[in-house]
This record gives sequence, C-alpha cells and structure tokens, in this order.
Amino acid sequence: METTIDLHFKEEEAYYATNTSGNRIEIDMYQDDKQAMSPTELLLSGVIACAAVDIAAMIRKRRKTLIDLKGKATGTRRNEHPRKFTDIHIQYDICSPDLSEEEAAKIIDLAVEKYCSVAATLNETTNLTHGFSIKKD
Amino acid sequence: METTIDLHFKEEEAYYATNTSGNRIEIDMYQDDKQAMSPTELLLSGVIACAAVDIAAMIRKRRKTLIDLKGKATGTRRNEHPRKFTDIHIQYDICSPDLSEEEAAKIIDLAVEKYCSVAATLNETTNLTHGFSIKKD
Repeated sequence: METTIDLHFKEEEAYYATNTSGNRIEIDMYQDDKQAMSPTELLLSGVIACAAVDIAAMIRKRRKTLIDLKGKATGTRRNEHPRKFTDIHIQYDICSPDLSEEEAAKIIDLAVEKYCSVAATLNETTNLTHGFSIKKD
Repeated sequence: METTIDLHFKEEEAYYATNTSGNRIEIDMYQDDKQAMSPTELLLSGVIACAAVDIAAMIRKRRKTLIDLKGKATGTRRNEHPRKFTDIHIQYDICSPDLSEEEAAKIIDLAVEKYCSVAATLNETTNLTHGFSIKKD
C-alpha cells in the first residue's frame, strides 16, 4: 500500500503539504508567533491519532458507548543533532458509561502496540509509553 | 526539549490536534470523501518538511538563491498489522540559479541523514531513501 504527500514551499521556515485527495496542512518552524504545526508536532499528532482511531473502533465493536476520547502526546527530544525523540508518552482520556478499566487497558495496549502503523514506524530506541483515564460521563 | 500535542474527538474516524500555540490540524481516516490527512500522511508530511527546513537554511547559509523547494514523499506500508512503513522515499525539486548539483547533493544528505529530527525518530528497519532534481529557473 502506497501513500504519497506533496510538499510546497512558502518560505524558508514555512511550507504546506497536500495528500492525493487535495487536503492541505500548513507547517512552520517559527519559534514565536507560530501559525502552524512543526514537523515534530505532526509526528506526535500522527502517533496519537493513529491509535485513537483503533481505540474508538474497538470500543464500538465491543458494543460499548464512546462519548469522548481525548488524548495528549508528550515527546522529549535530544538536545544534540539529530534531535530525535528519545521518549514519547501518549495519554488517552476516555469518557464511556459502560467500558470497564480492564477493557480500556486491553484495547489501548492492542491499539498502540499491535495496530498503530505510525507507532510501529518509530525507532526502537524511542521509548513509547501510554496511559489512560476513564470516566463515566 | 519537550513537545506536547492535544488530540480532540470529532467522531470515530475523525479528530483534530492542537499544539501549545493553539494551531490546529484536522485528521481523518475516511477512505472515500477524505476531508483531512490521515495519521500516516502526517508522518510523511513531518519527515519531508523537517528536512526541507534544513535544506532551505543551508542554501541560504551558502549565500545561494532559493526560488522554490518542492518535495514528494512516497511511503510503502506492510499489508499485515502493524502496517508500518517499510520504505519511504523523499524527493526534492529545487529551483536555484546558482546552486550546483554537488552542493545540492551534499546539503540534502546532511539534512536528511544528520539534522532531520523526524527521520532520526523512524525505525531503523524503515528504508529511508532520498533524491533530488535541480533546475535554474
């Protein structure tokens, strides 16, 4: 399966990318007055969204109700070049009236460690951890 | 250095992510009628934009003129879970009246292999290759 992205130039520290459907995202590396996400932020967004889609699908397949699924990805990078992520933690906050802690734990493990295409593409020396909280309403 | 992204739920296959400056991107996993990038597309966008910023900066530092810097990232994923990228090729098309082929080759090597934080975070079993074309105007 092939995926293609086109990158377009705006200025030295600002670009936009398009997929084959024409959907567009802005990207910049500005330190101050940021207008868009930076490339490393896109990586974190990809990781946390990738597993979220599988989490939501697995909750539905178990015929449980999903009211909300928030997340936070926090990454720590080296100070030296290349400034790769040494640690990434992804945290999900699930709102479901009928999903148990045990089910949630199992679903998130499966999503992050077995199904997530983006997580599986990360370097084995990037320490990827995950956690969750669950509330009823 | 820490980077944080918040993920927000729209529906099972649609989310949005925000950085700490409040910049927002839409994300979806729709197969048809896509409205936004998918998580794997965000990963490719991150890789190709990350090295582009360094390429543009290095061209400027050499006091050469950069008219345009386009790119295309093409990734191939496994068919089995996890559907990780086995191969990613990033291609840059540079427009510069005074940058030589040799300089461009060296700059792109450095950007992708030494400086790019996102590329350095990819799995060592993901075969990352790169190429370029250069034109004068």
